[in-house]
Amino acid sequence: MTADTPAQIASDAPRDPVREPAPDVQVEPRQLSLDVPTITAFLDGHYAEVRQEVRERLVEHAGLLAEADDLPKDDYRDRVRDVVVDMAGTGATAMGLPKEYGGGGDIGASIAAFETLAFGDLSVLTKVGVQFGLFGGAILQLGTKSHHDRWMADIAAGRLLGCFAMTESGHGSNVADIETTAVYDPETQEFVLTTPHAGARKDYIGNAARHGELAVVFAQLEVAGEHHGVHALVTPIRVDGEPAPGVRIEDCGTKLGLNGVDNGRLYFDGVRVPRENLLDRFASVSPEGVYTSDIESQGRRFFTMLGTLVQGRVSVGGAGINAAKVAMAIAVKYADRRRQFEAGEEGTEQLLLDYGMHQRRLLPLLARTYALHFAQEVVAGQLHEVFSAPDAADEKARKLLESRAAGTKALGTWHATRVIQECREACGGAGYLAENRFAALKADTDVFTTFEGDNHVLLQLVAKGLLTDYSSGFADMDQFGMVRFVAGLAVDTVLEKTNVHKVLERIRDVLPGGREDEWDQEAGLLDPNYQLAMLRFREEHMIGGVARRIKGGVDRGGNPGEVFSTVQDHVIATARAHVERLVLEAFVDKMETMEESDEKVALNLLCDLYALSTIEADRAWFMEHGRLTVQRSKAITTEVNALCRKVRPIAVELVDAFGVPDELLRAEDLIG
Amino acid sequence: MTADTPAQIASDAPRDPVREPAPDVQVEPRQLSLDVPTITAFLDGHYAEVRQEVRERLVEHAGLLAEADDLPKDDYRDRVRDVVVDMAGTGATAMGLPKEYGGGGDIGASIAAFETLAFGDLSVLTKVGVQFGLFGGAILQLGTKSHHDRWMADIAAGRLLGCFAMTESGHGSNVADIETTAVYDPETQEFVLTTPHAGARKDYIGNAARHGELAVVFAQLEVAGEHHGVHALVTPIRVDGEPAPGVRIEDCGTKLGLNGVDNGRLYFDGVRVPRENLLDRFASVSPEGVYTSDIESQGRRFFTMLGTLVQGRVSVGGAGINAAKVAMAIAVKYADRRRQFEAGEEGTEQLLLDYGMHQRRLLPLLARTYALHFAQEVVAGQLHEVFSAPDAADEKARKLLESRAAGTKALGTWHATRVIQECREACGGAGYLAENRFAALKADTDVFTTFEGDNHVLLQLVAKGLLTDYSSGFADMDQFGMVRFVAGLAVDTVLEKTNVHKVLERIRDVLPGGREDEWDQEAGLLDPNYQLAMLRFREEHMIGGVARRIKGGVDRGGNPGEVFSTVQDHVIATARAHVERLVLEAFVDKMETMEESDEKVALNLLCDLYALSTIEADRAWFMEHGRLTVQRSKAITTEVNALCRKVRPIAVELVDAFGVPDELLRAEDLIG
Repeated sequence: MTADTPAQIASDAPRDPVREPAPDVQVEPRQLSLDVPTITAFLDGHYAEVRQEVRERLVEHAGLLAEADDLPKDDYRDRVRDVVVDMAGTGATAMGLPKEYGGGGDIGASIAAFETLAFGDLSVLTKVGVQFGLFGGAILQLGTKSHHDRWMADIAAGRLLGCFAMTESGHGSNVADIETTAVYDPETQEFVLTTPHAGARKDYIGNAARHGELAVVFAQLEVAGEHHGVHALVTPIRVDGEPAPGVRIEDCGTKLGLNGVDNGRLYFDGVRVPRENLLDRFASVSPEGVYTSDIESQGRRFFTMLGTLVQGRVSVGGAGINAAKVAMAIAVKYADRRRQFEAGEEGTEQLLLDYGMHQRRLLPLLARTYALHFAQEVVAGQLHEVFSAPDAADEKARKLLESRAAGTKALGTWHATRVIQECREACGGAGYLAENRFAALKADTDVFTTFEGDNHVLLQLVAKGLLTDYSSGFADMDQFGMVRFVAGLAVDTVLEKTNVHKVLERIRDVLPGGREDEWDQEAGLLDPNYQLAMLRFREEHMIGGVARRIKGGVDRGGNPGEVFSTVQDHVIATARAHVERLVLEAFVDKMETMEESDEKVALNLLCDLYALSTIEADRAWFMEHGRLTVQRSKAITTEVNALCRKVRPIAVELVDAFGVPDELLRAEDLIG
Repeated sequence: MTADTPAQIASDAPRDPVREPAPDVQVEPRQLSLDVPTITAFLDGHYAEVRQEVRERLVEHAGLLAEADDLPKDDYRDRVRDVVVDMAGTGATAMGLPKEYGGGGDIGASIAAFETLAFGDLSVLTKVGVQFGLFGGAILQLGTKSHHDRWMADIAAGRLLGCFAMTESGHGSNVADIETTAVYDPETQEFVLTTPHAGARKDYIGNAARHGELAVVFAQLEVAGEHHGVHALVTPIRVDGEPAPGVRIEDCGTKLGLNGVDNGRLYFDGVRVPRENLLDRFASVSPEGVYTSDIESQGRRFFTMLGTLVQGRVSVGGAGINAAKVAMAIAVKYADRRRQFEAGEEGTEQLLLDYGMHQRRLLPLLARTYALHFAQEVVAGQLHEVFSAPDAADEKARKLLESRAAGTKALGTWHATRVIQECREACGGAGYLAENRFAALKADTDVFTTFEGDNHVLLQLVAKGLLTDYSSGFADMDQFGMVRFVAGLAVDTVLEKTNVHKVLERIRDVLPGGREDEWDQEAGLLDPNYQLAMLRFREEHMIGGVARRIKGGVDRGGNPGEVFSTVQDHVIATARAHVERLVLEAFVDKMETMEESDEKVALNLLCDLYALSTIEADRAWFMEHGRLTVQRSKAITTEVNALCRKVRPIAVELVDAFGVPDELLRAEDLIG
């Protein structure tokens, strides 16, 4: 790296104080010489081999992408099943299941594989998630050796397909209150599974409408008249292709997307399930009907029960981020090829990507895609750590993981929706043709923002953790409990309990000026310490604001529901601010691990672009809270534009580095 | 209307100067008693009967909405054709064609009918647009009596289906440079139609892949070695279901949406078209090969040639706005019914719509839907006026119409994309099921932002008009011509030429303070004069800024292409600011025509909510340009929240007033 590149300046120590745009705004960077495989290797990270393996499998099945455009629904579903089963045969899909049953025994690898599947047909991805992640994962984590011996090898090989039957029509985001019942009958040593009313049917269940033979059914357990909360039972739902006795199955029908997945509804009418089918890692029922559980902490049991959901959230977030890469690759490559006015004027035949507006539309999204990629790497690593040695992980680590998984999933999947839409529009009418990929991307990813936890609900979960410092009762404390908890604390206590306060003090030490109220005025815009301090300030200030408003609302006599309702938008904004800070930290930290090189310069440009475009998007807030002057706010916009111009010449290489195989991009007319 | 309602205060004379939040923020409005049919009648306006007629036709064919979920593509296309032909038999589709051929002879009615079609299957809407608007409209407006006598009755009745073959693969937004040629051969008195290369094929042409018999083909006319620019010829493309000799037809295949429309590609290989098939209202070729045209002004001929496009843009903008109403109706009614946590706590079983965040997500969009409805009414009225007496309309009126149609189309269709996405997410996983309507709404409307003119290109057209005061050469002056034009003027001249300068001066007279720099500090937030002045200031300031930057760029030696590229985002932001101001004016003006009533109070709440949420969304800009203090900016956010709470109790009535028949909403599970 040479001294004249802006990124080097950025990664060095803080510069002299400036109040005007950073002086390097006008400096033209020398042309960077990028080695695409180097960046790909950096992105692929520890699991590069796994990712490469999945890329190759996807290329083998690339034909499915075109077939999916026109296959009738049931044929499409069967094709997807065949691909999933075929992939299972190669070991690409069950990397999270134990080796002794044919799996890969590596949770981190399973996330990496899943993320890479997002380059291909997303019904395949989703069916893999249902089969190996949710269904297989539930039996793995909630069951014991007898269950594993009985089913796991068939599950890992794709010979036995099954469902994860948790969600009920009436209880989308409220798992603890599902209403399906499982009542133990000691006479026959069976559980009797019942759907008490239509609102308690299991809904949107993948693998239910056509292919699943078993289902892990979540139900309220009742033994000898006592209620023990939600437990899971392995229940046969289909025998020789017909619904099992007492089971009614409905097809959810055509969906907005993911029509290669057979979602269905399940109703149980006194279905008898053998006692042994209770997944009994954390609680069991004796033949005589005695309920026992080793876990003292109800919260911990609940969390462990929901462990598969955490893994699902990490998976879906990663899938969203990787689906966004496909869209970015097509739109950037198209914009580097297409001229706005082909016939052109003298010397003015610019490519679409030479236009300022087009850069503005695509390049900050490209930067955010990279940022989210690295944030996803962090949360996937945490997941691997916690779940590889579940007994070693402490309560706090689990809760931090739960929160981070929720936040990354929310931002990653919203990002996918936004990127795919912008990229579709940026490819004009041609982007509307199914052969150009956006149709499936848009339709299939749409539900990512909603399933495995609605994004708004997930951000409330994140905020709850921030406001209560992940205190005891966090997992099962609902929003009203949170309001009461916060209302019971002094606001200062909330701030003390959260980390950000100290973090912000620490960051002030490394910024110029040092005086309380000048750090934000004097630092260089490209100083990552400045960028982080801005996002940390916002987060801290918002947490304090929400705490104050909750206390104030309760003090004025509001009930928790009303109080929560009026602060809800602040709660969600706070969570978003928190996650955006985590994402920037992940990017900045990752950059520190990279060797000096042109590739590092390039990625540092993206890191700056992510940081400043994030601040710019909320610059009204920063002005309102005294952290941006009008001049500095304008300077940030100027800098974002300058960064876009600097990224433009390397944009194609930066999307090539995602390593989406050409066969999966399709879009021959667009990108040739 | 009683004196204690906030809307009354808003529509009265300016209040006492305040620097803090308006005092009525905390005032609870009395419960409004709304008569839904009164509001529907107000929205339906002059063409209430036409709209009602179309609603009834749509209800008859409501079954198509469910069928469309699962029909194979070709069957779906045929069903759509059948519905279109059936509707044509009732006269609901050809209201813009002349009465003597079975049409309705009323352009305004045809727009109203088309807008209402957007409540139903959007493939039907699109095919109606292709057949009666584009194909029929081109023959009507570009042809003469012999053409009308020969084809119009069959077109109006749906017996003869045809195409509007303008767009070429290589020239999405650049119609003047299409490359298909029509060379006159005096020997046989025919034109020879040729597609010189694959990039000049006609692309995305509706009715081409399956049903069209004729096409109005736009081609570069060459007579006796001389080139006369783009002209239109009626060309048979299909005979007895087979492609006509020399015509090659390809199917565009599966699309993201609108799969009931048979889009295709047309290639012409020396296709011979009789001389009489040249649509010769503005130019003709004699049997011997002499070209004559009555129109001196090339600009006017070009505009008239493109007249069908202007009508198309007004139609598509209206369709987008009305499709958004369907989504709003479902999401608001669902949110008024669904509880976030069904099982609930003591007294806290709030409905989704009681939550602050949910109100924030939906209600400003509801306000904007109303605002755009009224803005659409204005542009549809202008279209009716100009095209009902085309010879009477002056150049300026045509250009203002063209600009307004472009701007309303862009904002209306982006609004549809945004509303449908937000509403889908607000309905959770259930929103993902096709039976709940969002699947089709989302997929089918997606291309609205691109077809009939890409939205970004359309906003550039709007900005061009603002910067050049719709001066001569406007229509055919491209972006580089615009740069040169502006660079040749003094900046002051640009500002003088535009209207906004004077408009803003005028508005200052009616605001309190009166002094140059205080009008924005002292007016009440709910004073429409204040709201309009803010949007006008922004527009004027942006126009001046773009003009200055263009001049500066050219003065510093930049070529027009580079200069345009660097100002492009400002150009587009300027156009958007202009259109948002027009939309607010339309809403405010419309409110003045309404009799005092609870319904007026309700709509005034929406008008305030539209105005303030629009200012809020760009509050960073207003702060950066000295028009909002931090305190006032925060006060606007507070006021938007207050308005949301006031609109919440009447939200269901306000969506019911759109008059979307229940049969078309489907979504039985969601809204019962």
